[in-house]
Amino acid sequence: MTTEVKPQAAVAELMDGIGRAARGAAQALALSSSAERNRALQCIATRIRASSVDILAANKADLGAARQQGLGHAMLDRLMLDANRLDVIAAGVDAIAAMPDPIGRVISQWQRPNGLAIQRISVPLGVIGIIYESRPNVTIDAAALCLKSANAAILRGGSESFRSNTALHACVRAGLSDAGINVAAVQLVPTTDRDAVGYLLSSMSRWLDVVVPRGGKGLIRRVQEDARVPVIGHLDGICHVYLHTAAEVGMARDITVNAKMRRTGICGAAETLLVDRANADTILPPVANALLEAGCELRGDAAVCAIVPQATLASEADWATEYLDAVISIRIVDDIEQAMQHIRQFGSAHTECIVTEDQAAADRFCREVDSAIVLHNASTQFADGGEFGMGAEIGIATGRVHARGPVGAAQLTSYKYVVHGCGQVRG
Amino acid sequence: MTTEVKPQAAVAELMDGIGRAARGAAQALALSSSAERNRALQCIATRIRASSVDILAANKADLGAARQQGLGHAMLDRLMLDANRLDVIAAGVDAIAAMPDPIGRVISQWQRPNGLAIQRISVPLGVIGIIYESRPNVTIDAAALCLKSANAAILRGGSESFRSNTALHACVRAGLSDAGINVAAVQLVPTTDRDAVGYLLSSMSRWLDVVVPRGGKGLIRRVQEDARVPVIGHLDGICHVYLHTAAEVGMARDITVNAKMRRTGICGAAETLLVDRANADTILPPVANALLEAGCELRGDAAVCAIVPQATLASEADWATEYLDAVISIRIVDDIEQAMQHIRQFGSAHTECIVTEDQAAADRFCREVDSAIVLHNASTQFADGGEFGMGAEIGIATGRVHARGPVGAAQLTSYKYVVHGCGQVRG
Repeated sequence: MTTEVKPQAAVAELMDGIGRAARGAAQALALSSSAERNRALQCIATRIRASSVDILAANKADLGAARQQGLGHAMLDRLMLDANRLDVIAAGVDAIAAMPDPIGRVISQWQRPNGLAIQRISVPLGVIGIIYESRPNVTIDAAALCLKSANAAILRGGSESFRSNTALHACVRAGLSDAGINVAAVQLVPTTDRDAVGYLLSSMSRWLDVVVPRGGKGLIRRVQEDARVPVIGHLDGICHVYLHTAAEVGMARDITVNAKMRRTGICGAAETLLVDRANADTILPPVANALLEAGCELRGDAAVCAIVPQATLASEADWATEYLDAVISIRIVDDIEQAMQHIRQFGSAHTECIVTEDQAAADRFCREVDSAIVLHNASTQFADGGEFGMGAEIGIATGRVHARGPVGAAQLTSYKYVVHGCGQVRG
Repeated sequence: MTTEVKPQAAVAELMDGIGRAARGAAQALALSSSAERNRALQCIATRIRASSVDILAANKADLGAARQQGLGHAMLDRLMLDANRLDVIAAGVDAIAAMPDPIGRVISQWQRPNGLAIQRISVPLGVIGIIYESRPNVTIDAAALCLKSANAAILRGGSESFRSNTALHACVRAGLSDAGINVAAVQLVPTTDRDAVGYLLSSMSRWLDVVVPRGGKGLIRRVQEDARVPVIGHLDGICHVYLHTAAEVGMARDITVNAKMRRTGICGAAETLLVDRANADTILPPVANALLEAGCELRGDAAVCAIVPQATLASEADWATEYLDAVISIRIVDDIEQAMQHIRQFGSAHTECIVTEDQAAADRFCREVDSAIVLHNASTQFADGGEFGMGAEIGIATGRVHARGPVGAAQLTSYKYVVHGCGQVRG
């Protein structure tokens, strides 16, 4: 494993070389055909399937090292690959290949009174830097989405998944090469030296058009602090399920358990349950029991603890915590107003859900709650590009600029205006 | 005039107060109706018309001070207001009021196989900081576009237009008040202290969602260097007119003169003329003569100087210079390939124009030139939100993220997903 720390100058030389090559690859990609890029994606999927033994061996080595370092269950789950997950990853690449081309699309067009015909046409962003943590599937998802949208990618994964990422990236290189595309179109930073991230963020604006961080708070904070290029931010998901007075009990139970427990380590997992005071006595016991049966720890306010004896008292910090684990905080609220106030105060503007049979309450919640995704009567775990029909996602953006919510290939584009005239001059 | 320099702590207190008030105003604006916001715009237009004497007196004082400081012609032209320009400004506000609401629009919607109904709905960005230089009309354009798109605005204009901006902002405040909208929806930083800009860029991410700089290179560079919030960048416009072999001579002449000379101080003004070698002998003399007659200085490469005796020899620096004045650099190129190569090397990805009767050449140029606006047979001076039918613009974005080209009210929006289900959980 190559975790050597490089001297500063060597890092700069390495990274500038990567950046220069990426810029060149991006210029060629921007003019490539949809068929060429889709063929490269298919070649990558084929290479992943053919290399599963190598990839899983590399992943096993990463997992062993991670266990030795004492990484927690949620982290190990994020890091782990098996034959099934690898199949899903390869199928995801094929699915992206089968999607419509997001580039060269006439987004809108109109004619001006003076005869100018204006077209707004989608174009690639250029070179995208993706900085991520433990999930090795991001290596492939990000590579495939960038390639689909004709962007060059510079990938920088977490050190704990370095072996897995290197094995997966070898498949990308081989697939690009099979399809006759410049392998610099998708590069993996070949060192775990942290200085490489600093250099990428602060000193590569010549080569880099945007950075997409995907990971925990510490990473995001660092990127936002240090980046001298635009960031498509992915922050933490403190997602709420709100059980309104008019919630149907069975639906409330099923949605809450799914939102929290289907997979606890993803950003769309619910972290806080809000329950209207008016029906807390009837709705909370069955919901709490179902959560307990599913193995979830409950932390509630005093009113919750009075109804649910198994709940421990939540501290103020609980409301602002993204557990990413089998723990949920529960609070009784007076009404929809207080529920929305709680979400405004403690939420991360990622994904929230209201469970209610009252359409007016649902409409108000959907209109007034200012989160990237607001769901009515559906689990927060649907906060996912695949579930939205985008094929795959690079993450869920919680910033307000450029893209918000699932970031798929179509969100990794810019646009330009093409204007046809017949000699018009401005008066 | 209040150009006092405030101590650091006072600046922080001032700016945090502005930010906090803006955030509060933004939350209310996001839930305001289209009618309320349009009424406020109409009240502002009325106030501007009623206050023309005060505004022009303030502008006269700014102009006098600017002349004393020896500011150049282009700068004075940017700074100057007269009754006519003020009419245009007020009419622009009315025009923005009359445009469709960019907020609450269902941008797209689709249904998933599991029955989830997904809507993508436009929402405001939140709080927008606008940092600009000499043009006082930006005070009103920016205020009106932000208000139209339900964003709160923090305006920080150039010190040379401080009196004009203050007079114009008084009309905004009065108009907001007339319409019953929180006056904190549009605030003008009430000091010319440069520390206020530094604080705005670096320390207000709690209050500020995006910064839009509008001005010259120095300002943009500072913003990109110091900003800890997303930037919708407006860089310099080194715009090119390319006269292809198949250009019609009369059209080439009219477009070139208009692109350069209609107004030299705007970012869409042409700075460089590229002429195909094959027809340089026939097309360049009439184009050069028309430019000279219009009062333009010509700086050409050796081949140009051989054809046009009035041209002086251009230096390498000329190709990378945004004159914003009655000067044009001219270069003879071998073919479309070399023209595009020149634009790639020296351009600012703002606006370029090809003049040709050859549709295939035009299509290639429009496809391959990677600028925000690419025109065929029309003047680069059409690079303008109003000319594009957007009502008004806050500037021309040359970044690739979020918005590119003219930034009107519709570009000052984000979106959210609203998902309606009937109890769906994720498998």
